[in-house]
Amino acid sequence: MISEVLAAMPSRNSHIRPNDNPDITAERVKATFDTEALSSIIYGGPEKLNRRREIAKYVDDHPEMKDPYPTDFMTREMKLENVARKALLWMEHAELATDVGSQEEGFHFGSLITGIDGHPLAIHLIMAIPALLNNADDEQLDEWLPKAISRQFIATYAQTELGHGTNLSQLETTATYDPKTQEWVLNTPTITATKWWPGNLGKSSNYTVVMAQLITNGKNYGAHPFFIQIRDEKSHRPLPGITLGDIGPKFGMNANDNGFMQFDHFRVKRRAMLMKNAKVLPDGTYVPPKHPKLGYSAMIFVRSAVVGLMSLHMAQAATIGIRYSVVRRQGEITPGAGEVKILDYQTQQYRLFPQLARAFAFRLAGVHALTMYNTIMKQVNSGNTDALADLHALASGLKAVATYQTALGIEQCRFACGGHGYSLASGIPQIYTVAVGGCTYEGENMVLLLQLARYLRKRAAEMTSGKGPAEVPTPLAAYLFQSSPKHSSIGTPVYAPNGEFEGVLQTFEHVSRRLTLTAYAKLQKLEGSGISTEIALNQCAVEWRRASHAFTRVALARIMSGILEQATDQGVREVLEDIVRLYVYYEVGEAAAELLEDGFVDASQVEFARQQVYDALAKIRPNAVSLVDSFDLSDRELNSVLGRRDGNVYENLLKWAQASPLNKDDVLPFHHRYLGKMMTDAKKASKL
Amino acid sequence: MISEVLAAMPSRNSHIRPNDNPDITAERVKATFDTEALSSIIYGGPEKLNRRREIAKYVDDHPEMKDPYPTDFMTREMKLENVARKALLWMEHAELATDVGSQEEGFHFGSLITGIDGHPLAIHLIMAIPALLNNADDEQLDEWLPKAISRQFIATYAQTELGHGTNLSQLETTATYDPKTQEWVLNTPTITATKWWPGNLGKSSNYTVVMAQLITNGKNYGAHPFFIQIRDEKSHRPLPGITLGDIGPKFGMNANDNGFMQFDHFRVKRRAMLMKNAKVLPDGTYVPPKHPKLGYSAMIFVRSAVVGLMSLHMAQAATIGIRYSVVRRQGEITPGAGEVKILDYQTQQYRLFPQLARAFAFRLAGVHALTMYNTIMKQVNSGNTDALADLHALASGLKAVATYQTALGIEQCRFACGGHGYSLASGIPQIYTVAVGGCTYEGENMVLLLQLARYLRKRAAEMTSGKGPAEVPTPLAAYLFQSSPKHSSIGTPVYAPNGEFEGVLQTFEHVSRRLTLTAYAKLQKLEGSGISTEIALNQCAVEWRRASHAFTRVALARIMSGILEQATDQGVREVLEDIVRLYVYYEVGEAAAELLEDGFVDASQVEFARQQVYDALAKIRPNAVSLVDSFDLSDRELNSVLGRRDGNVYENLLKWAQASPLNKDDVLPFHHRYLGKMMTDAKKASKL
Repeated sequence: MISEVLAAMPSRNSHIRPNDNPDITAERVKATFDTEALSSIIYGGPEKLNRRREIAKYVDDHPEMKDPYPTDFMTREMKLENVARKALLWMEHAELATDVGSQEEGFHFGSLITGIDGHPLAIHLIMAIPALLNNADDEQLDEWLPKAISRQFIATYAQTELGHGTNLSQLETTATYDPKTQEWVLNTPTITATKWWPGNLGKSSNYTVVMAQLITNGKNYGAHPFFIQIRDEKSHRPLPGITLGDIGPKFGMNANDNGFMQFDHFRVKRRAMLMKNAKVLPDGTYVPPKHPKLGYSAMIFVRSAVVGLMSLHMAQAATIGIRYSVVRRQGEITPGAGEVKILDYQTQQYRLFPQLARAFAFRLAGVHALTMYNTIMKQVNSGNTDALADLHALASGLKAVATYQTALGIEQCRFACGGHGYSLASGIPQIYTVAVGGCTYEGENMVLLLQLARYLRKRAAEMTSGKGPAEVPTPLAAYLFQSSPKHSSIGTPVYAPNGEFEGVLQTFEHVSRRLTLTAYAKLQKLEGSGISTEIALNQCAVEWRRASHAFTRVALARIMSGILEQATDQGVREVLEDIVRLYVYYEVGEAAAELLEDGFVDASQVEFARQQVYDALAKIRPNAVSLVDSFDLSDRELNSVLGRRDGNVYENLLKWAQASPLNKDDVLPFHHRYLGKMMTDAKKASKL
Repeated sequence: MISEVLAAMPSRNSHIRPNDNPDITAERVKATFDTEALSSIIYGGPEKLNRRREIAKYVDDHPEMKDPYPTDFMTREMKLENVARKALLWMEHAELATDVGSQEEGFHFGSLITGIDGHPLAIHLIMAIPALLNNADDEQLDEWLPKAISRQFIATYAQTELGHGTNLSQLETTATYDPKTQEWVLNTPTITATKWWPGNLGKSSNYTVVMAQLITNGKNYGAHPFFIQIRDEKSHRPLPGITLGDIGPKFGMNANDNGFMQFDHFRVKRRAMLMKNAKVLPDGTYVPPKHPKLGYSAMIFVRSAVVGLMSLHMAQAATIGIRYSVVRRQGEITPGAGEVKILDYQTQQYRLFPQLARAFAFRLAGVHALTMYNTIMKQVNSGNTDALADLHALASGLKAVATYQTALGIEQCRFACGGHGYSLASGIPQIYTVAVGGCTYEGENMVLLLQLARYLRKRAAEMTSGKGPAEVPTPLAAYLFQSSPKHSSIGTPVYAPNGEFEGVLQTFEHVSRRLTLTAYAKLQKLEGSGISTEIALNQCAVEWRRASHAFTRVALARIMSGILEQATDQGVREVLEDIVRLYVYYEVGEAAAELLEDGFVDASQVEFARQQVYDALAKIRPNAVSLVDSFDLSDRELNSVLGRRDGNVYENLLKWAQASPLNKDDVLPFHHRYLGKMMTDAKKASKL
């Protein structure tokens, strides 16, 4: 058999197995680099790659961790039951399968078991426990933390309300202190005050951190955290005075019971208030926090993590799209030469390969931001907060840009699969609906870009003051204070560590500087016309958004080009150069208007960049499958018939469909009541 | 009450009612134009608008046509049952409610009843009956058409297979003639030959048109249409030799039972072949068609219709996004002045209003293409096929551009709704999943743009030959043969019927010409290097795609600016000018790189365009709700809690969620088996 012959050939791609579709094996045989070496770079070394695989094998060896049938055929109730069952297995096996000290291992193990659509312990682990750690005093921690960690209760974090998301100061839920009974009275005074969206609040959680306006002695001290029980520990029914429910089906994440909650003068003890920072004494005296909280450090962490998550989703979609595109044959290029693999079309490469490059970029950016986070948080803990604003700006921009580009990119991968991409069998719709949520949660993207703009506005003031930066900027922002060369060096060699790409990076830096200063000039002009700064800011908000994007482009491109330093293997270095080349010159195309506008780049340079993109597409083509193989995503992680490692797509599409509940019987139970009756009646009528 | 006071105020917006949310009424009161006048323009006159409303009222007056509860809470099986029930009501009431001679009325009535997610008669009506009309000879028509029209059977149209979509010549299903029995033997020789995707094939249809390779006397004559029975008329079971099933859940359209079908040497009579064109005689002699078919006229029609459908979906999403944005208040612009409606943010306007403008553009373009279709088909029927290629090119480009921009635009509207946009209660995810299907069905967008490119390549050859066009081009293509002015007149007045916009239109024309010629020059250069035309074409396919987009941009902008001629009312004309201004200058921004690249436009003109966009956003702001009201979409059509006409969003979000099946009981039936057990076990363990 062809497949056996191919499988036996020496190859630098380690993903070849017997009985694979020969069309996909033929691709793998062509690899010009060692996929293991690239996987090691992606996952931070051979050790980590190996652990990743051991964990995947552990899951594969436990069939009870599988879904009994595809979850796409399940109702939400079935999905919730299935994932509750699996979440328990995850917890039971966590110590056996993973290093419990490693967040990365735990996350990988959990996501292999639960899938991407949510699970009942998500918020307990990701938000509720950290919220206790950040807000509970020692005595409160002693009482609650061991129980939380051993899962004697399931807690969530209830902040957003029907009427308010990002604007914490306007939350309407109240916690009013009653000194007579030394209790808080939690209340939902309006419908818009209903807590809405908290994950796992609807059905799973029996405790919650809740943010409410703290009112004592007749004064409102703003939103504060409380930790309260909301369901009976035995019956799991909501406690009297509390209304709970699921907020209903969503675009994705339907295995998460996002919930709503209302309080009807619900009383809790004084110490339900989390008192690490502010306190209220038994007599109702409010004691403010000693140190203003560094509230946004947790947000920075989560935003950085989201960037890494987007890389995973983009890699999943690119893997599916690229693998399927070497299995699918459609149309001829040379007449009579037979149908070609659709990946041979330049337009198909143009759709898919930039997404592949972005998967790399977001992976690197996520790691970069988390590393920077860890470094800077150490500085912060020793009193140096200089770099915090830079980090916050970077994380906000990266999160906004990565989530949106990922959403667009996933859809391109789906379109690239033609009609079959629209079937849930492709797995891509499910990836899209989960990933695109990232554009909205943890800081709506537009809001984030405007937060970054606030940072840039301060920098612009410093840039134009002539005094330079007030704090020492991090390397990612230092360029703002340097001056531009006269003209872009795109297309001419620059002598720098990352060689040919330095000219592009400097060009992006120029654009970032320019757009920041342009937006600032517009702002000043508007202010000069006599309107307030706030109104002026709103009138040039779109310009600031553009500047924020340009700032983030610099960061992404610089981080991305840094990958070349990690490649020791020559074959890997070459293929990564193709990827970086595609990434940066594709970005030149995306930014071409801004590059051309002030003449910094001329048309021949844009054309040069375009040609670099086409050349990179052609060079990547033979390595495309091996590149996505290097992400080392298992069939379980991909959850896609089109993206199967073995390329045996069509027979498995048929099997998948046949398993669908609608095919349990050839005739739907209600057929004769409606369509059958219609046809029978029509026949009768025709004979009258 | 405020709402009553506002409702009683004189207003040019006819959509104000008592008990509406005062925040939305306040918007309507501000209308500077007569919404009725604009609605009349949108729907083709006051008569048609009135009929539209009468039909909507008819549906409202028949509660049995409603869903018993939101379909978002239903399984696919429930959805199919619900829509089968409703489709029958549609058929029973069609004559009472609509002019059966008007496709438009029938479509509107049907979509009001069935919703946007598909129904069991869709393909029967849209494709199977037209396929019979185009392919059956008179005798066959006599036998089948009356039964089809009276719905004595339900038929579908089975062309695509698991392994092949667009490339008809490579379909694998065979129909082999057996002269001994004078029968066809239909067969599915491979898994990839399985018919896959035909709508309503899985469960509803008992007849089908099927495309198969016609083989007679040992020779394959290519794909031909057959009309066959596939299920027993009484039991509805698949006939022996036929395997049928549903292809499983999809991104959207889940009330359609897209199906699969396999033949195992299934025999049908000779006259199952549709013989209007080619024939096979009893002895097996193949008689070719007398006139080569004008196969693509049906495709042109459908593609034009898709453009109109996209306008509807874009209008739905824009209506939801804009209405919700005047109900939602979040954040302050001027400190201390209270939270503003989120539509007051420039960035929110920038997200939403271009989608609104595109909804207008696609509506006009769909009507334009259908009108052109009707005109040109008359010419074709009298032997003049000159304009057919222009029409095909236009319809292909419009379909590709409108579907993709609609998909992107709907998501922008969803993002604009923040977290609530992610809930199915917003209605936008469902609109997205249905609309985005348009990027793939009826000609995958990239394939369509390359079809249009083929047309442009011919024009480029004519343009460079110096001889001019071979056929007289339609007005939409004539500009290709004119020469450009030296410099764009954007920002300087041009004296033309559409006044200030003519300079922009001419600029777009210049870009279209330039990109077509550039792509052609690249092609010729590649051919000159010794590679075949086909390979050369593939190597500059991305450039051709760009040229196709530029050509379509001209058409859309020109059609869009034509709307101004329809406005007789001064207020309407002014607001439409704002919309057209936003549309064309937003497009300048989108095309800025291509405009700047050859210096045809300079930076100050791009900046001028940008300022025009910002000015238009500010001018549209007070009319935004009245503009979307003018689309006259009922709450039933919107199917959105966020987009309700009355603006009473929050209380209805809560009601919607409370009706969700997960909230039937406070505790899920499996709770104690999993999460409950986990917590109990943990508590026990802690006491050991």
